[in-house]
Order: sequence, then C-alpha cells, then structure tokens
Amino acid sequence: MPDTLHDGDALNLDVAASHMVTRIPRVRAEATVDSVLELLRGQVFQCADTIFVVDPQDRLLGIVRINDLFSDGTRLIQDIMVPEHEAVALGDDQEEIASLAIRLNMIAVPVVDWDQKLVGAVPPEALFRILRDEHMEDLQRFAGIAAHDDGPDAALDAPLFNRFSRRLPWLVFGLLASSLITVVMVGFEHTLSSNVSVAFFVPALVYIAGAIGTQAVSVSVRGLSVGEVDIGALLRDELIIGSAIGTALGSLAGLAVMIFFGDVILAVAVGLAVLAGGTVSAVVGFGLPWVFKRFGSDPALGSGPICTIIQDVTSLFIYFALVSLLVL
Amino acid sequence: MPDTLHDGDALNLDVAASHMVTRIPRVRAEATVDSVLELLRGQVFQCADTIFVVDPQDRLLGIVRINDLFSDGTRLIQDIMVPEHEAVALGDDQEEIASLAIRLNMIAVPVVDWDQKLVGAVPPEALFRILRDEHMEDLQRFAGIAAHDDGPDAALDAPLFNRFSRRLPWLVFGLLASSLITVVMVGFEHTLSSNVSVAFFVPALVYIAGAIGTQAVSVSVRGLSVGEVDIGALLRDELIIGSAIGTALGSLAGLAVMIFFGDVILAVAVGLAVLAGGTVSAVVGFGLPWVFKRFGSDPALGSGPICTIIQDVTSLFIYFALVSLLVL
Repeated sequence: MPDTLHDGDALNLDVAASHMVTRIPRVRAEATVDSVLELLRGQVFQCADTIFVVDPQDRLLGIVRINDLFSDGTRLIQDIMVPEHEAVALGDDQEEIASLAIRLNMIAVPVVDWDQKLVGAVPPEALFRILRDEHMEDLQRFAGIAAHDDGPDAALDAPLFNRFSRRLPWLVFGLLASSLITVVMVGFEHTLSSNVSVAFFVPALVYIAGAIGTQAVSVSVRGLSVGEVDIGALLRDELIIGSAIGTALGSLAGLAVMIFFGDVILAVAVGLAVLAGGTVSAVVGFGLPWVFKRFGSDPALGSGPICTIIQDVTSLFIYFALVSLLVL
Repeated sequence: MPDTLHDGDALNLDVAASHMVTRIPRVRAEATVDSVLELLRGQVFQCADTIFVVDPQDRLLGIVRINDLFSDGTRLIQDIMVPEHEAVALGDDQEEIASLAIRLNMIAVPVVDWDQKLVGAVPPEALFRILRDEHMEDLQRFAGIAAHDDGPDAALDAPLFNRFSRRLPWLVFGLLASSLITVVMVGFEHTLSSNVSVAFFVPALVYIAGAIGTQAVSVSVRGLSVGEVDIGALLRDELIIGSAIGTALGSLAGLAVMIFFGDVILAVAVGLAVLAGGTVSAVVGFGLPWVFKRFGSDPALGSGPICTIIQDVTSLFIYFALVSLLVL
C-alpha cells in the first residue's frame, strides 16, 4: 500500500487526498495513556504529532496532541482528548484544509471518507507547504499571473516562454478592456479640446482611484479568508472609509490644483472626481472579490483588470461629466 | 517561570523570543529510544513534536522528530537524530523563523541564546500563525495599508478611524507623487493641444505599464522569499520577458489604433510606448523590491506608489516624446 494516495507534487491535485499520509496513530477512547504509549512503541508513523481516537467502525471521536500524551499514565484517552469531530473530506481543496487547521488550532488535520471513516491525516509538514503555496499563489493572482501546473515554487524556474505565456493572457484581456477607457476619453473629445489642461489630471485621477481600489480588494480578500464575517457591515464600513478617504484626498487635490493652476472650476472638478471616484473604487474593489467567490472563482481575481477598468472608467466619467457640467 | 518569555499577542514583538515555548523535551545523544520514552512520561510539554538533543552544556546537537521516536527501542538517539544545528536566535524576526522552517522542513524551530544554548522552540502552532500573518501582511503591504499594531487579524475589527488612518498615509504620498505625472503632462501641453487625440490613450498606457509592473513586483517578491536566488539571472530574464510582453501588447495596441483611428503616427507612437513602457515597468517593478530589501525595508513596499509613479512617468514621457518626435 502506498504511503500517500497520490504524489501531490507530480499530480498537483490540491486536495486532501494528495496531501495526506495514512500511517497515523489510531487509538480507542477507553485506553489508558500508558497502554497507548506501549502500543505506539516500535511502530513507524508519518504523523505522530496527533493521536486520533476512533470508534470500532473507525469513525473519528477526537484527537490528542502528543504534548498531552506524556502526562499522567493512568488517565484514560477519553479524558484528555479534544472531542473534535471536524475533519476534511478526501476531495476537499487545500484552502479548506488550511482554514480548518488555522481556525481550530490543529497541527494535523484528519481526513475522512464518504462514510466518515478516518483514512489519514494531513501532517504539519504538508500544512506548512499548503500555507506557503496559498501565500505565493495569492501574490501571483493579485498580479494577474496564471498558476503554474507544478505549483508556485516551480514558477520561478520555469522556462522563459512558460513564464511569458502565464503572464500574457490577463494583460491582453486588460488591454482589450482598457479600450473602454479610451472610448470614454473619445466621448469627451469636445471637453478636452476646449480646455486641454483638463487632460493634465487624468493619469493622477486614474492612479488614485486604482490605489484606493487595491486597498479595498486587499481588505475584502482578507475578510473572505477569515471565514464568517458579516459582509453587509463590512461593505457599509468600506463605503464610510472610502468616502472619508475620498473627501481627504479630494480636498487635498482640489487645493493643489487651485494653488498651482488658479482654476476654480478645474479645482472643484478634480476634487469632486477624486471624492466620487475614490468612493466608487472602494465599493467596487471591496465587492468584486465577493462576487468572484460567489461564482466559484478566486476572490483575488478581483484585483485584476475587471476591477481596475471599472474604477478607471467610473472615475474618468465622473471627472469629465463634472468638468463639462461646471464649464457650461 | 513563565511559559513564554513574552506574550506575543500583547506586545506584538515579531521575534523568536515572543513566539517560543520553553517546556520542550531535551535529551542526550547517548540515550536509547526506550530510555527517552521513559524519561518523557509524566511530563507536560508545550512542544513534544520534536525532541531536542543537547550536549552537557545545553548546546543543540540535533533533533529527532516524534515520528521517529516510536521506532526500535534499543537504538541510540544519536543514530536516529538529524544532526541539524541550525536554529534561530532570540531576536530573530518571525520571517526568518518561517523561512528556516520551510527550508529545512522543520515543524518546530529551536531557539538559542547568544551562547548557542538551547532556550526554547517555536512550536508548529506558532509557525502556522506566523505563516498566515506573513501572508495577510503581504496582502496589506501590496495594497499600501499600514500594519495594525496587534497584527493583521485585528485589522478587520479595528474601529473605523483606525482603518481609515492606516490606509490614508500611502494614498497621500501617492497623491503627492502623482503630481510628477501631472508635471509630465503639463510639459507636453503643446503636443496635447496640437492633437487632442493624443490624450485618448494616456489612461490605457498608464494601465498597461502598471499591470506589467505589478506582475514583475510579484515575481520579485516571490524570488526574495525563496532565499538564495541569482538576482542577475532573474533580472536578465525579466528584461527578456518584459520586452517580449511589450512587443506583443505594443503590436496589438498599435494595430488597434491603426484600425480604429487610421492614424499611422499615433499607432506607431502608442505601439512603441507600450513596448518601451512595458519593458521599463518590468525592470523597475522587478528591481525595486530588491532595492527596498537592500535598505532593510519590506520588499512588498516595491508595489507601492514609488514603483507606480516611476512606471507612469516613464511610460508617458516615452509616449509624448515619441509623438512629438514623429509629428515633427
């Protein structure tokens, strides 16, 4: 019988079955600590950090940390075990394994089959790799880089063409999407040609909207990773924080335009565009990861071109509309 | 004697001393497995996943995974131990603890004092928290959000004003820095007013340069987290990949401008600006995190406003210079 059901590195199945080991200590609840220690002697385990307590049908009753096994030898396992039935299924994604481990402070996560029978455990070594992989994958997704088939660590040493082709798709999509921004600009050609200085503030506006949006995406992705959070409350908070930030930066930007360009209308338009664009960006940046998650995609995709383009288009539209309105 | 030297949550000292536990199994190399198991019985440990082998002066000789302790009882500890002297010092940063654990596949990291004497170990539970905190902190830093004093998990529940004020500083800095982009735009006022359609492509150019740069930052931060990587080779790769991406996207953008606007000069200028801006963004995005690391800062700061502004200013300068040159 193989030690692991699959070789995770070769198959890159990011599920519990590919991360688990099967040679783990299984004991009965009625046994004494001393008898368990005797039982474990002479056996070779792949994960002895946690002792798994099972019933005669091999169903998980609880776990005992090895730390607690070297205690009073006459005590019964059932008296020192954590009656913790939560486990992952064979097909559960590695993200779920990591979040269960973190939530319950477990260093080895039991794996059960469709019949709730204990089949193995994901050892701490594998949990470390999972946590690190998730970290590296998030960094990639945030930057719009497609995942490498062999996991994030292989990505750095991949052949040049592979690295090139994992980065190109999102950029091409972004380029196509950014034609929408160009459409907005063309739509306000009249405003631009009647006062070319309106164009001066376009890149800075786009930059600020994007920066506020990126912060909101990061808050959102973090919120989703924590698990049970009240999305309504967080969204309301984000609206408040976004408009507060928009007000602060908008006042600053308007003041700067007033001082350096002496144009009241332009100053008001820039200030209000930063305020409105910032608020919209915060809400969009916060909301999109939840939408992605809802449709079964990765929340970190919310930081990609879709979010940026929505923010850019909204900010510029507000800006040009304000300028056109105020100049008229 | 306290269990931990410091309460890490309260003090938020992200160093080994605040994460370690001190009640750990210490054994001699000459002992047999059986005698060690007898010795451990009846004791309460905070981290029994790893047995630490020390000499009479308490200096670390090696470690034994608990998995290997339930093997042949007549064998000597020195025959089954991993003669692994690497440890962290009391003042080492939590990032170093995590990278050592990952590199050596250790699930408990020994901590030694100035005299190389074993004083404790960072248990797997703490390593999990560290890995997760580093993950969440990276997401924050990538987005330019200042760290919360009580760690990233506290950040979500912080009062609104705290969340607002941790996000504002980088944005204000970004707003100030973005005035540089405005200066570039003002500098090419003549080019803009002689052909207002030049302005149409400014937001898309800024977007693409930023997207390529963000990917490069992510590759760079990942490279730095791996540890020993040849920066020269990676930088050369990034130059090749960046110019390949720039060529692909530049051709696409130029073609689109040609088709929809029928302006050859504008098409060539946009295409070349995407090519040049993309290459510069890739190199800057890749290089800045190394510069930050070199000066003792966090590499993920490389994704902040400084990087974006350099990329935006360069791309726009190249674009306007090309337009001015080609139109003349």
